[in-house]
Amino acid sequence: MHAVTIVDQRPEWRQHPDPRPGHGEVLVRVRAAGLNGADRIQLAGLYPAPAGSPPDILGLELAGEVAAVGSGVTRWHEGDRVMAVVGGGGQAELAVVHERHLLPVPDGLSWAEAGGFPEVFATAHDALFTQCHLGMGERMCVHGAAGGVGIAGVQLAVAAGASVVATVRDPARRADVAALGATAVAPDGFVDHGPYDVVLELVGAPNMAANLRALAGGGRISVIGIGAGAKAEVNLGALMTRRGRIHGSTLRARSLEDKALAARQVEAHVLPLLDAGTVRVPVAATYPMADAAAALERFAAGGKFGKIVLLAPD
Amino acid sequence: MHAVTIVDQRPEWRQHPDPRPGHGEVLVRVRAAGLNGADRIQLAGLYPAPAGSPPDILGLELAGEVAAVGSGVTRWHEGDRVMAVVGGGGQAELAVVHERHLLPVPDGLSWAEAGGFPEVFATAHDALFTQCHLGMGERMCVHGAAGGVGIAGVQLAVAAGASVVATVRDPARRADVAALGATAVAPDGFVDHGPYDVVLELVGAPNMAANLRALAGGGRISVIGIGAGAKAEVNLGALMTRRGRIHGSTLRARSLEDKALAARQVEAHVLPLLDAGTVRVPVAATYPMADAAAALERFAAGGKFGKIVLLAPD
Repeated sequence: MHAVTIVDQRPEWRQHPDPRPGHGEVLVRVRAAGLNGADRIQLAGLYPAPAGSPPDILGLELAGEVAAVGSGVTRWHEGDRVMAVVGGGGQAELAVVHERHLLPVPDGLSWAEAGGFPEVFATAHDALFTQCHLGMGERMCVHGAAGGVGIAGVQLAVAAGASVVATVRDPARRADVAALGATAVAPDGFVDHGPYDVVLELVGAPNMAANLRALAGGGRISVIGIGAGAKAEVNLGALMTRRGRIHGSTLRARSLEDKALAARQVEAHVLPLLDAGTVRVPVAATYPMADAAAALERFAAGGKFGKIVLLAPD
Repeated sequence: MHAVTIVDQRPEWRQHPDPRPGHGEVLVRVRAAGLNGADRIQLAGLYPAPAGSPPDILGLELAGEVAAVGSGVTRWHEGDRVMAVVGGGGQAELAVVHERHLLPVPDGLSWAEAGGFPEVFATAHDALFTQCHLGMGERMCVHGAAGGVGIAGVQLAVAAGASVVATVRDPARRADVAALGATAVAPDGFVDHGPYDVVLELVGAPNMAANLRALAGGGRISVIGIGAGAKAEVNLGALMTRRGRIHGSTLRARSLEDKALAARQVEAHVLPLLDAGTVRVPVAATYPMADAAAALERFAAGGKFGKIVLLAPD
């Protein structure tokens, strides 16, 4: 098979031995694999794949058809349409995934949409509900709402009956985010729209002081993205008087069983929304997998709305 | 009645009109009232009493006998031994308390112990269990373990089956803390004894960087005391890779119903431990209420082990 391979901090479309599924594993013929911010960090050598994932092949999510199953696999059969969050190796013609990490692809979803769905929706669902217990009628702020996790987070919060304010740096993208059901504002205006029960922080440390000022009593801040900086000054007194809490999280560092649990949460609570059309997966652009370098350049340029997805050769 | 009254940032034993219980309220003839760190901050004008509490009388906890009940009170009767966390006004001969904030005083408890029990045990129980969900077999660190909340926190964590490391600044107090069931260490040695599932932070910002370094995956930090500083630099990247969370909390700022819920938690889960002798309330010293100034000086001098409690005149 061929795969998007890390060679001297650059992506190259190179040949690899075909992987084989072990016990409880499924071999997937990949059709589409979304790009994520973490791909760029991994390419730079700063975010190595966890043990058990291919160390030199990019890709944190994939969608495709079951090509073969290992011993002990009961749920999936050859030809099933599946998608998954993976620890690495998603941007390849073939990938091995633990059967409990796979989700079925709803009938109406294209390959590009399915390839760009798992990582951002699993991340946003975990942050909003498993961590922050966002509930109906709560007020929520999503920072960096035009990005992949932001688009997922806004939609899931709206679907849960929350009232959503979304910060978007690029004025040209505010209408897109507003169309998802949020009040889209410039980053420096969000405090005036608070206080917030839940804040989804996808930008980083520079927002934290204002996040705390704008936090409601009992409010929760979930930090998922720190592209703009990791070192935050946190006023613990303000956190105490608000009885607030700050969560940090990543999906990738989790155990096999934690990832399986996250997959079941998404299957139970998000796939029905996809089926019903309540949430959708905007795709900004697709590229052939062999052109991953161009796709990553497009990703780095910003200003997009929706996922950038690599498509495997037919 | 007389009460410990805030006059020009000094405590004075002054006369006040007797308070009267309203609907759902109980008039308590106070026998004992513990001192807390917050008393000193309130005296300095930096921690005003919440609405509904006497603004000029110190005291966040009390124990005594029911002197009269307002309309609608069903649980309590004249002469019942009761204790409570209050928003203020505990250091007085009489105090009015909402009936749902009262706890029964176990038979074996002295007035001094009962007067020093509610605030620290309610605070520690809320932090460890309601916020951090400390469980059996988890590893916990208590910073500032020789203080009132620290002594309560160590005992509750040990009772819950956790393994407890406790930092104590004063070497002379380490044996006292170790006798509660903890491994007592100097403040700069705790990282080596980690990683920790739960950290109870009673000292403040200077510990936060090391707390994060010593946090286990899925770990929780509860910040309850910030005497050594409120502004912490938090590495959000470290919080993310550990999938950690930081809680801030105070009891005093809460709603009537939140305080009632906290009282029920303590009644259900801590009073049985007091009855059984599993936890105890060390009392370092008692003073007559009229000598609150001397008691506060003793509190400020540090180096004590256990509560300082004011006793009302007979």
